[in-house]
Amino acid sequence: MRYALKVAYDGTNYCGWQIQKNGNTVQAELERAISECFSETANVTASGRTDSGVHAKGQVCHVDLKIDMPGNRLADALNAKLPPDICVVESCSAPENFDANRSAKRKTYRYKFYISPRRDPLKDRYSCWVKGNDDIEEIANKMREIAPVFVGEHDFKAYCASGSQVLTTVREVYSIEICSAENEISVDVCGGGFLYNMVRTMVGTLLFYALGRLKKEQVITSIEKCDRSQVGKTMPANGLTLLSVEYGVKLF
Amino acid sequence: MRYALKVAYDGTNYCGWQIQKNGNTVQAELERAISECFSETANVTASGRTDSGVHAKGQVCHVDLKIDMPGNRLADALNAKLPPDICVVESCSAPENFDANRSAKRKTYRYKFYISPRRDPLKDRYSCWVKGNDDIEEIANKMREIAPVFVGEHDFKAYCASGSQVLTTVREVYSIEICSAENEISVDVCGGGFLYNMVRTMVGTLLFYALGRLKKEQVITSIEKCDRSQVGKTMPANGLTLLSVEYGVKLF
Repeated sequence: MRYALKVAYDGTNYCGWQIQKNGNTVQAELERAISECFSETANVTASGRTDSGVHAKGQVCHVDLKIDMPGNRLADALNAKLPPDICVVESCSAPENFDANRSAKRKTYRYKFYISPRRDPLKDRYSCWVKGNDDIEEIANKMREIAPVFVGEHDFKAYCASGSQVLTTVREVYSIEICSAENEISVDVCGGGFLYNMVRTMVGTLLFYALGRLKKEQVITSIEKCDRSQVGKTMPANGLTLLSVEYGVKLF
Repeated sequence: MRYALKVAYDGTNYCGWQIQKNGNTVQAELERAISECFSETANVTASGRTDSGVHAKGQVCHVDLKIDMPGNRLADALNAKLPPDICVVESCSAPENFDANRSAKRKTYRYKFYISPRRDPLKDRYSCWVKGNDDIEEIANKMREIAPVFVGEHDFKAYCASGSQVLTTVREVYSIEICSAENEISVDVCGGGFLYNMVRTMVGTLLFYALGRLKKEQVITSIEKCDRSQVGKTMPANGLTLLSVEYGVKLF
């Protein structure tokens, strides 16, 4: 029986999604919960990995279990065994050909940062501190000015962390939406898929442009010539949240 | 030299504001930071205590130091010695007769909770989970319906945790503002001062009324007759944040 799960997690205390030798991961916690609930060893496949410290509101994964149960009951069963910073928010039975990774059509990430002379302990967990005193509306408007450069199908090689092995670095970004509230900016990036570190490096580049540390031509060159020397810094993980994954079919 | 500090903290890992024998407190961390910065033993006085687990965005306190320095420099000096979940967001020199506790004119607390069938690990730290599926706008409207009962000068004895020693349980609530967004409600309570647990018990009562577990007459009786049997449950600490303290003079 194949099941699909929608999972939310606070990534602060995890070494990302994927099981690894050193350090706890979200996948490891889910597989442990499954084994404690059903005495089954199962492999949970997500839409994609999230990095160490990255959060998720709507990560989607699938798992094959021997047990046959109403799909919507799985969530509460697993939540009883999961730590408070991981929660299965929805669960359902899924068709055999549903693959959380390969069937994914669109993903939306949100990156949040706040600009302030001093840290805000109530924001730090889910939003990155940018030290400064800049006018937030002005920064947001400048980011909106340059964002269209990334929209569409491009070779994002310059935005991919070195060392990652992928067949192609071409990806399609569907939309970038920038909102501001008080001293905080959130950037919603929706696309068909993303390279390792791509969203965080894109946001760093948008910000560097807005702060006057990169020119428009440099940002364009970074995309057109895949020139990594023309991109902003990769923003820290804590500001990033995987909001949703869409599959073209209603799952939950 | 007297200085005033505006302090923000994530209260999750603290046993409240006030120094105590068992467990770390925000006051203890500030006094330790002062001692490390200036080799002085000083007593930091806040506008009032906050309970274990309660957060603050704008707690105000004063401290007398032998060192004479520009007041606005104190914040960065202390922040260098404070843990990441406590931050002095503003600092200034204050007149000798300024007393963060006694001079306080108005305090505003915000209580946040969300209603959902399942926990949200990305909300849990600063917002209380109320298990359910209720229409959030309906709940907010019902809370707005009963909130005026608390506004004005009343004897809030029924809303005060037993065992607390105060001269009078009469307090004045200036306003209660209720906002909703997605599945979350925030209640901003502004008043001249509050009893121990008063905001959390008021919010629990507003919520119980909205959920149909208390009648309007019961809530009125709880105030008019100081009848503790007619109040809702005291909401957990994690949803509460001390937003601001006002003094009738501009401090920072």
